Amino acid sequence: MEIITTKSAMQQRSSQLKRSGKSIGFVPTMGYLHNGHLKLVHHAKQDNEITVMSIFVNPLQFGAGEDFDTYPRDHERDKRLAEKNGVDILFLPDREEMYQSELSLDLKVVKRANILCGRSRPGHFDGVATVLVKLFNIILPDSVYFGMKDAQQVAVVDSLISHFDFPITLVPVETDREEDGLARSSRNVYLSKEEREQAPAIFKAIKTGELAIVEGEQNPSSVVKLVEEYINKNTDGVIDYVEVLSFPELTPLNRLQGKIIIAAAVKFSKARLIDNIIIDQILGRP
Amino acid sequence: MEIITTKSAMQQRSSQLKRSGKSIGFVPTMGYLHNGHLKLVHHAKQDNEITVMSIFVNPLQFGAGEDFDTYPRDHERDKRLAEKNGVDILFLPDREEMYQSELSLDLKVVKRANILCGRSRPGHFDGVATVLVKLFNIILPDSVYFGMKDAQQVAVVDSLISHFDFPITLVPVETDREEDGLARSSRNVYLSKEEREQAPAIFKAIKTGELAIVEGEQNPSSVVKLVEEYINKNTDGVIDYVEVLSFPELTPLNRLQGKIIIAAAVKFSKARLIDNIIIDQILGRP
Repeated sequence: MEIITTKSAMQQRSSQLKRSGKSIGFVPTMGYLHNGHLKLVHHAKQDNEITVMSIFVNPLQFGAGEDFDTYPRDHERDKRLAEKNGVDILFLPDREEMYQSELSLDLKVVKRANILCGRSRPGHFDGVATVLVKLFNIILPDSVYFGMKDAQQVAVVDSLISHFDFPITLVPVETDREEDGLARSSRNVYLSKEEREQAPAIFKAIKTGELAIVEGEQNPSSVVKLVEEYINKNTDGVIDYVEVLSFPELTPLNRLQGKIIIAAAVKFSKARLIDNIIIDQILGRP
Repeated sequence: MEIITTKSAMQQRSSQLKRSGKSIGFVPTMGYLHNGHLKLVHHAKQDNEITVMSIFVNPLQFGAGEDFDTYPRDHERDKRLAEKNGVDILFLPDREEMYQSELSLDLKVVKRANILCGRSRPGHFDGVATVLVKLFNIILPDSVYFGMKDAQQVAVVDSLISHFDFPITLVPVETDREEDGLARSSRNVYLSKEEREQAPAIFKAIKTGELAIVEGEQNPSSVVKLVEEYINKNTDGVIDYVEVLSFPELTPLNRLQGKIIIAAAVKFSKARLIDNIIIDQILGRP
């Protein structure tokens, strides 16, 4: 596995790969890899000749008081895992390399961003969009892989690619889960033993909402109430949001129809966990 | 010459050219071609295997009350001129093709943009930056060519490319002029006969400022005053601005040193004309 730490070397390598007709699959990550990331790598490898992974904890997408400084990092383990799983090129820039001077443009995501996580994390998706424009231009991928755990991120990246006409295919990949249903996340390491035992209740709560919809419930508020009750009853976490919206537009619905998302965010003592399910109401089931 | 009108066809063509190792030079224009544009084509052809020109009058960079509706257009003449001058591919999308849905992101240029033309034309450079990000992603150029008449645009595009790490080289090309010194511009057709006779005074005024600097003047205000006096004395136009700034940063200077720009904008009855000179004070002459 090749490890590249500068933008110019990465861009040169990618340009060279493109010129020789190779397709590039790109898995952007913040590191501290888990099986969810490796599943993205697996998909990228299936679809492309070259798989590039980036590891960069992007300061721009963390708000004041968020966990930028304490976000878990383990580059040595990440390198081993990436190599073992067939990543061809690991792009590992540091903060100074990625942001070499004061920002001269300001990119704001105005659709799909000011609800769900965007409401609790103002500026978060602006930071995500900015770093992705840079990474897309440095890595020149044909396809980019994102996990559906961050469904709103998928919706925003879909907007970003179409708004700016990037020649890139977005490939959303199903959320990877522990055996008890908890969505895999680098932030799960923040959970206490007791919280870890409670955390799968978030997914179970969302499944309860899904079941109600499949059985005919059409009122979003009733579904939200069901999910909230389940979380409150089965965890000590504090609900940040539970919402039922259209997907990927992320707009409120009066009546449940079409493709919808049930999404929840719950704050534990040190971890804020998110999860979701997408339901396609045309089929009447997920 | 190939003419392409859809984003997808253009992007596919460019991707194919890149895969086969061809270099692409890109000349973005708003059409109504004059010798200045053709000079950009000439440079693009010298440096690249394929030259792509776009013609698109971008609504996003026109403010309310500006000349979007009346901006001169002549596609048939443009096509002939482009072909005759060796453009390989002409990208000619319409407004609906370029902006297919409501904008989902908002891009603002925060440096180099809120002075000179940016002050008189709020939002102008945000619109320029947005359409260029799209065009860069559709045309995938190795190099992009801009005329120095729009020096602030060159400064902003320089920011845009480095801020977002586009794999593109910016090539500024010297302003093309009529025999009497007037900078060529599609908007010169707006001038009355009398105004056309006066218009070369803008460049002469800037040259007067340059001469003063070369002869030792170090106070920006004195230079501005000289240029303004010359314009007021020799034209009926109304000065929008005369400024002396650092280049390409476009920041005010207490004392003239380093690379500087003398820039002026003058409003005639129907035309607002701009012009500038860059002086490198290290050499002490232009």
